Amino acid sequence: MTDNLIEKLTAMFIRFPGIGPRQARRFVYHLLRDNPENVRRLAETISQLRVHTGQCRQCYRYFTGNNQTICNLCSDQSRDKHSLMIVEKDADLETIRKTDVYAGLFFVLGGLIPVLEKKPGQRIRLTELKAGLKKLKPQEVIIALAVSDSGDATAEYLRSELAELARDLNFKISLLGRGLSTGTELEYSDYRTLDDALKNRH
Amino acid sequence: MTDNLIEKLTAMFIRFPGIGPRQARRFVYHLLRDNPENVRRLAETISQLRVHTGQCRQCYRYFTGNNQTICNLCSDQSRDKHSLMIVEKDADLETIRKTDVYAGLFFVLGGLIPVLEKKPGQRIRLTELKAGLKKLKPQEVIIALAVSDSGDATAEYLRSELAELARDLNFKISLLGRGLSTGTELEYSDYRTLDDALKNRH
Amino acid sequence: MTDNLIEKLTAMFIRFPGIGPRQARRFVYHLLRDNPENVRRLAETISQLRVHTGQCRQCYRYFTGNNQTICNLCSDQSRDKHSLMIVEKDADLETIRKTDVYAGLFFVLGGLIPVLEKKPGQRIRLTELKAGLKKLKPQEVIIALAVSDSGDATAEYLRSELAELARDLNFKISLLGRGLSTGTELEYSDYRTLDDALKNRH
Amino acid sequence: MTDNLIEKLTAMFIRFPGIGPRQARRFVYHLLRDNPENVRRLAETISQLRVHTGQCRQCYRYFTGNNQTICNLCSDQSRDKHSLMIVEKDADLETIRKTDVYAGLFFVLGGLIPVLEKKPGQRIRLTELKAGLKKLKPQEVIIALAVSDSGDATAEYLRSELAELARDLNFKISLLGRGLSTGTELEYSDYRTLDDALKNRH
Repeated sequence: MTDNLIEKLTAMFIRFPGIGPRQARRFVYHLLRDNPENVRRLAETISQLRVHTGQCRQCYRYFTGNNQTICNLCSDQSRDKHSLMIVEKDADLETIRKTDVYAGLFFVLGGLIPVLEKKPGQRIRLTELKAGLKKLKPQEVIIALAVSDSGDATAEYLRSELAELARDLNFKISLLGRGLSTGTELEYSDYRTLDDALKNRH
Repeated sequence: MTDNLIEKLTAMFIRFPGIGPRQARRFVYHLLRDNPENVRRLAETISQLRVHTGQCRQCYRYFTGNNQTICNLCSDQSRDKHSLMIVEKDADLETIRKTDVYAGLFFVLGGLIPVLEKKPGQRIRLTELKAGLKKLKPQEVIIALAVSDSGDATAEYLRSELAELARDLNFKISLLGRGLSTGTELEYSDYRTLDDALKNRH
Repeated sequence: MTDNLIEKLTAMFIRFPGIGPRQARRFVYHLLRDNPENVRRLAETISQLRVHTGQCRQCYRYFTGNNQTICNLCSDQSRDKHSLMIVEKDADLETIRKTDVYAGLFFVLGGLIPVLEKKPGQRIRLTELKAGLKKLKPQEVIIALAVSDSGDATAEYLRSELAELARDLNFKISLLGRGLSTGTELEYSDYRTLDDALKNRH
Repeated sequence: MTDNLIEKLTAMFIRFPGIGPRQARRFVYHLLRDNPENVRRLAETISQLRVHTGQCRQCYRYFTGNNQTICNLCSDQSRDKHSLMIVEKDADLETIRKTDVYAGLFFVLGGLIPVLEKKPGQRIRLTELKAGLKKLKPQEVIIALAVSDSGDATAEYLRSELAELARDLNFKISLLGRGLSTGTELEYSDYRTLDDALKNRH
């Protein structure tokens, strides 16, 4: 006899980020009422996802490609090869790419280093980053991480770990500017934002 | 060449109830990082869902069964055959079933009738309900719908449509009681809840 | 020299229910920018509030009256003297009064009894309630408390404490009805609400 | 006969910023239950507020002082007279002052200019600002306004209106720096914040 597929699939959806039991179950009912062809294509796409999607060997973001090892962003000749922006995760890269404020290359670090972490190098792709820098030889490395304790700890760690390489390869290390961001109201700002905004006044 | 599966799958997840573009994308990244075996089983379970899951021919809820036409609830001999509770949807049935307050049979109406709907009979499983009642011959039919305008419109419509059958088959039609529910604070109650609570005082 | 009145008044507003330091300060700026006549009348009204407002000696709600001891609700000859509704606080009474579902008299209990309270009688106006019942001799006492643990504990305590008096004076004790309230969706209902709704079906 | 002071005072509290009818009424019940001495002092403080609090003739913030025309901040000899920070309102000034990131003088503009406003000069204290600048002769004027359309419109208007005076008196006009602020996550950042952060990288 077949298991209870409704319960089984609900349990699988509960593992999705941000999904509780009720919404998971609603997903299953959605699939039961949806066009069968849609459901068939969903199953197929999920089963193909890992076959045709891999991590780019240069920037480490996920991309779909047939036997390609380098993603379309890294192989795009129109992008500025002199600049490499280090981001925490794919979603950050996508947001920055969509805003079109930046025309250079990216590197996905794969995480942030918690404050007081004893083995920081194992939390992020440091070895891969260093290898990439030696190959790419950019003029500038831009650290683009969240403004948080672990974002700051990671930026500091990167600055220190990349210092020697920066001297050898002659690239500059910069951090995204800090200050007031869109929607900031001064009344509700904290010490650090105000301090940054004042120091970076222009 | 293969399509961009990340974008394609994100678009599919956006169609899930309550899911926006960002969370849809996060689902895809979750699948890219998850254990491959988990992802394989998810795809397989989704592809099997519609094969092995159907609507019960008696209560119309979804259930998993091999070539069965009647669900395990309807065929459970320990449940009280004299009582039939009419609910809007599967999720309502599940909640009521889990609380164990009710031991009779169910019927899933499949929707509510919006106020001023011109063809109310096409919104709900009225024909199927009538056929079921003739077959089951219960002693009581309990209308268990949401306390809302469309819930009330549907209850009223059902009462009127089932009146003749209730006389012929000699069953009683009742509605779930109304009044204060768990967590109700009197200060924030509305006219109708207070009026119901006062009329149903005991 | 004068104290800093802005700080002083901010501190006073922080003591208002639900008000934090920022909103308290905003209140002060509001008063500094408002029409001076409005501010003068606010100060005057606050200073007169306790002089002209007292608790009704019969129902214990706050009311404004010159040397009156009984409020206008209790002395309103058009209200039904046969029924007394027991509520927790003034705000509950006001909500019920405004909905016009009830035409009888009220009694403000002044609190609820926490579960496991050792001296329950000191939390509520039990002595005053008993004295009032002896004087009013109603035919029905309606307990109208929140659906919560302390609401239930209080209702149970009242039932037990008033039992003898109910026999002697021949009045009925009833509780507001329970079940589905406005806006209730069955999917999100809890055991107790569903159990009540099923028992009180009609 | 006396008015209903509970209703009257509730109506007065409804005029407070962010306060609805229910919370306003709760304020009144709070005052009815509070220590009478507290209520007396609240009324007295409110009645004295406008008598002893005025706007500083130099920075235009509200302050408490006996017949003083200049506030304690403006007359504090330890503050840096070479720098003047222009803020929208008192609450902004207070937040910045408390963080202690800035040691110079302030000027409260009294508002922001909506985009497309035809008479921008009437929305803010421009005349007073110019007079103050002539008297103070600072070396730097820091525009510290919200990052919003009206904040930007106001900053632009100030830059243009103060340009001549800046040349004559030889002061620099600067804006608070923009970029990532505390808590910013790159994934959720908008074009402008990312663009500012990239331009202001260091």
